Amino acid sequence: MKNKFKVDFLPSKKGTVVPQGTVILDAAAKAGVIIDAPCGRQGRCGRCLVKVEKGRVIDYESPYLSAKQLQQGWILSCIAKVASDLVIHVPSKKEQARLVSEIATTRKAVATRLLWPLSPAVRHFFIELSPPSLSDNTADFDRLKSALSIKYGIENLTVSLPLMQKISQDLRKAHWQLTVAIDTQNQGKAARLINIYPGHRKRGALGVAIDIGTTNIVADLVDLSSGHSLNRVSALNRQSTCGEDVISRIIYSERKGGVKRLNRLVIQTINDLLDTLSAKNKIQATEIDQMVVAGNTTMTHLFLSLPPTYIRQEPYLCTTTQFPVVTATELGVKINPHASIYCLPAIAAYVGGDISAGVLSSGLFKSNKLSLFLDIGTNGEIVLGNSEWMIACACSAGPAFEGAGVSCGMPANIGAIEDIIIDSHTLEPTFKVLGDIPPLGICGSGMISALAEMLVTGIVDKAGHINRGTGDNPRIRIGEHGGEYVLCWSADSGTAEDITLSEIDINNLIRTKAAIYAGITVMLKRLGIPISEIEQVLIGGAFGQHINIERAIKIGLLPNLPWKKFQFLGNTSLSGAYNVLLSTKAQQKAKSIARKITYLELITDNTFMNELTAASFLPHTDSSNFPPIKTLAG
Amino acid sequence: MKNKFKVDFLPSKKGTVVPQGTVILDAAAKAGVIIDAPCGRQGRCGRCLVKVEKGRVIDYESPYLSAKQLQQGWILSCIAKVASDLVIHVPSKKEQARLVSEIATTRKAVATRLLWPLSPAVRHFFIELSPPSLSDNTADFDRLKSALSIKYGIENLTVSLPLMQKISQDLRKAHWQLTVAIDTQNQGKAARLINIYPGHRKRGALGVAIDIGTTNIVADLVDLSSGHSLNRVSALNRQSTCGEDVISRIIYSERKGGVKRLNRLVIQTINDLLDTLSAKNKIQATEIDQMVVAGNTTMTHLFLSLPPTYIRQEPYLCTTTQFPVVTATELGVKINPHASIYCLPAIAAYVGGDISAGVLSSGLFKSNKLSLFLDIGTNGEIVLGNSEWMIACACSAGPAFEGAGVSCGMPANIGAIEDIIIDSHTLEPTFKVLGDIPPLGICGSGMISALAEMLVTGIVDKAGHINRGTGDNPRIRIGEHGGEYVLCWSADSGTAEDITLSEIDINNLIRTKAAIYAGITVMLKRLGIPISEIEQVLIGGAFGQHINIERAIKIGLLPNLPWKKFQFLGNTSLSGAYNVLLSTKAQQKAKSIARKITYLELITDNTFMNELTAASFLPHTDSSNFPPIKTLAG
Repeated sequence: MKNKFKVDFLPSKKGTVVPQGTVILDAAAKAGVIIDAPCGRQGRCGRCLVKVEKGRVIDYESPYLSAKQLQQGWILSCIAKVASDLVIHVPSKKEQARLVSEIATTRKAVATRLLWPLSPAVRHFFIELSPPSLSDNTADFDRLKSALSIKYGIENLTVSLPLMQKISQDLRKAHWQLTVAIDTQNQGKAARLINIYPGHRKRGALGVAIDIGTTNIVADLVDLSSGHSLNRVSALNRQSTCGEDVISRIIYSERKGGVKRLNRLVIQTINDLLDTLSAKNKIQATEIDQMVVAGNTTMTHLFLSLPPTYIRQEPYLCTTTQFPVVTATELGVKINPHASIYCLPAIAAYVGGDISAGVLSSGLFKSNKLSLFLDIGTNGEIVLGNSEWMIACACSAGPAFEGAGVSCGMPANIGAIEDIIIDSHTLEPTFKVLGDIPPLGICGSGMISALAEMLVTGIVDKAGHINRGTGDNPRIRIGEHGGEYVLCWSADSGTAEDITLSEIDINNLIRTKAAIYAGITVMLKRLGIPISEIEQVLIGGAFGQHINIERAIKIGLLPNLPWKKFQFLGNTSLSGAYNVLLSTKAQQKAKSIARKITYLELITDNTFMNELTAASFLPHTDSSNFPPIKTLAG
Repeated sequence: MKNKFKVDFLPSKKGTVVPQGTVILDAAAKAGVIIDAPCGRQGRCGRCLVKVEKGRVIDYESPYLSAKQLQQGWILSCIAKVASDLVIHVPSKKEQARLVSEIATTRKAVATRLLWPLSPAVRHFFIELSPPSLSDNTADFDRLKSALSIKYGIENLTVSLPLMQKISQDLRKAHWQLTVAIDTQNQGKAARLINIYPGHRKRGALGVAIDIGTTNIVADLVDLSSGHSLNRVSALNRQSTCGEDVISRIIYSERKGGVKRLNRLVIQTINDLLDTLSAKNKIQATEIDQMVVAGNTTMTHLFLSLPPTYIRQEPYLCTTTQFPVVTATELGVKINPHASIYCLPAIAAYVGGDISAGVLSSGLFKSNKLSLFLDIGTNGEIVLGNSEWMIACACSAGPAFEGAGVSCGMPANIGAIEDIIIDSHTLEPTFKVLGDIPPLGICGSGMISALAEMLVTGIVDKAGHINRGTGDNPRIRIGEHGGEYVLCWSADSGTAEDITLSEIDINNLIRTKAAIYAGITVMLKRLGIPISEIEQVLIGGAFGQHINIERAIKIGLLPNLPWKKFQFLGNTSLSGAYNVLLSTKAQQKAKSIARKITYLELITDNTFMNELTAASFLPHTDSSNFPPIKTLAG
């Protein structure tokens, strides 16, 4: 058995001979091929990806490579070892950026899961009535009621006045053969007739799950009889024209007619989405017989025209945490006007129905593991607990990750830099842009990447200052707002302006990540639990699914835990709404979850300011909790 | 002991001497004083009333004299006997008419009774909340909910969206000290917040009971905490301009916008009544926190904008018998917009919530006696039964008693002849007019009186023909519509026209009374029960309270039963609504009553046409069931 092997690197065609078991990264160094490996050989950053074209390596397993990548021969050169003669392909910077962001992609969407047996509140029933006669002259609705009771055991059927007003006509038009939509309530103890379709309707009942985000609204059309999602569409929340974050929306709501206008805007956005879904599925929106909505407390208030004004005034109160069940007609939503709209309950003024939805759909509420649930958006909401107990807090993180307060910041739309790597030597960036067009700005995940890369490459120091000591690299300069790093020259950008990150931008990002991290530590300290005891970190929210864990840990946004403890659950707000739409038990559970969670008001917590200050460094004042930063520059 | 006594009659001053025990009527005949006694000495018609000015009579007891009349010395001369020397006052015709109608008066209104312990669905509760702070930042509605749970044990409190939208402001305006109106539903299992009053409200919760009659609407403002009626007001149903009876209203409703217009008219009438009640009681109508409505099926349908069109088309169906509970705002009723409005359940298309209300408030549903409940209006509705079973039917009696189809007919308003007696000898009438003005027409009770008197005096025969054989009396003549009797000469009338009853009028009245009587007999025969086994006759409805039993029996409208079996219950529809307003148990009972009553469709009953024909005589083909008619003319 040979114990020395030849290793050749492409495309440079440089080669060397090394003993069996040599780490590929060392073989490359010996051959004079430089591979960037900023995580310090921890197998965490994925930057050192290379592809085995020929030969065999060992110890290459990494949970951070997708099955597809592994199959294609990609390995991490900082951990894999030589086991035969090898031909290794070293990717270009461009290819590397794509591959690294694909690593992130493998952590993206955990598919929306239904955690309960399918038992939607709304169901369709076909019924054939005996036509009335002089010898059988039961009243129209009574006739229907009694037939439904006999055939399906549906008791105590009620109906709203507007539907009752047309039911006699409906029954006759249907020639006494019809499909009814029934909304069961109180765990099936009461039933409400909400729609009548003539004849035997073949299509299953339809419902729609909605996530009302401050920035984006997502709607999922669901076949309630199968549980399948038929289509998911999203649109910018039209309220965005009245302020980017919840606080500015609340301030807007305090104008004369403000609540009404904001309400109209969110309803219009939803109605537009319903139009899109209807067109895609060749249905009328009025065939949608139920809607479930999850959103933060302010969004839910505005959706229901509840004035949110006391949410932003000390002592920060919402009107209610359990929202009234309303009908579509009350809100002007253009589904079946008699359909009920259920809003997931909130926990507090800054921990809303989106978080109840997250706890519900993540399964945290029934987990035996000590779990940390994070929803990072305009605010960072955090839930810590397990099936026994749960505690929640909200960090006024600010909307930096959503692009506000960052000069070239933008939401995660087409044209946003969503991922970036910076060469340790040249400080030249390579980035991935949403939609593959010249970049227009940088979104949250891009900012996390950029900040981590700037820290690793020494462009920025622990305190967030641009390191002017990096010499005469043109990308590092003094701009209008102090030191800045040029991510993209005007010649390459879609805006004909340089895209930069300044110290002011960086300070905003640090404030944001510090608020979230401080929230986590205050909660843990309050309960006397060390960070290491957290058994799983569940990351929800639309933004969460784009975060690169390693980089988020690097800047001190996420706690330094083994990667395998992290789960990215995608849009847990929508997923929670989807679960409630498909299961009355989930609806009951959401209610009890919201009641069970203890809310911790950080503002009244003495330790919060200290923790916030401690976390306002990169990654943290106490860097012993974080992985070492190895930079070529440092 | 003397056994002969001197009897003197005033004002004629005629006198005679008779043996002890002589009936006064005989003594009068002996003295040459003529006293009219058309009932044939049965002590039933009250026509032979005289007053004992001095002396003593025996055997004078009659249930048909009021305590006041007895105290004043009035006796019936056909039954009372001489027991001492006597001075007897014989009243003038005018005085006699007043006295006879007062006899009827003594049978009029049985006061509205509450048959259940006071337990209104709506109650007021005073609550003082601890103001919120950073250390106690429970949401506004949650704060209220929890305080109400702790202090009053109110659980599962819900609130409608519009009230939720202003609750945060309401709580702050009230400085956290408030009186809330709670509507308990499902026998107290659910509670709905419907009103918030700042501070400690001293006045009890208010509710309103409404009887929607086809002709008149009556509203009773009730203090729900004491059960006291504060005011009762009534007004003409504004729908009257769109037709006098339910059939013409239904026809009107079939026009374009007809249902909407009829709905607006009834709501306007009710809102006007609410304005009157509010002004009288110095309240805002919005302080009324509940409304309960009873009406016939068509009136209830129009009140709720349910198209009534199938009510008049074979097989005669209403939309529903159990009506949805709605809020005031849904109907545009100007009480507290969040207050619920409960409509008493109907039994069938022509047996409505007014009849459920009647069975409820009359106590029929819990009686051990075999009871006959009658509501005579445009339609005659009949319920037969006891606590064990109940059967109901509706006779298309037609609106003759309400003045339609009778040339000089009119509703029981000012100017209507409501009672009449006709001198057996001269055929001259003496009448009582509502409001004591020159008569404008004749109302239902007047028609019954007139028909009975015309029959007794031989003006009309069994078949309803004007008896032209009475000779050359100018009051009996051939008019435009055949034979007619002149009730009032144009010189004495308020219309400057003769007020008459023609054979056509009489035929209409006979059809009406025959329909009711036939309904009663068909029901009894169906069950094999002889008339005599009826233990009580409960007469409800606005019109019922004005009927003179003796005369109604005489024309064959009411069955020939001892007077003591008849009870006049006044407006049982309103009374039922009042009971439901004040007792959730009564509400439950109304629901079960409506379900329990078996509806008998007369049109499909083979015997109905025979019974109708048999009853189309005065009093009936089989006169053996009726008291003998003794006339001086016959």
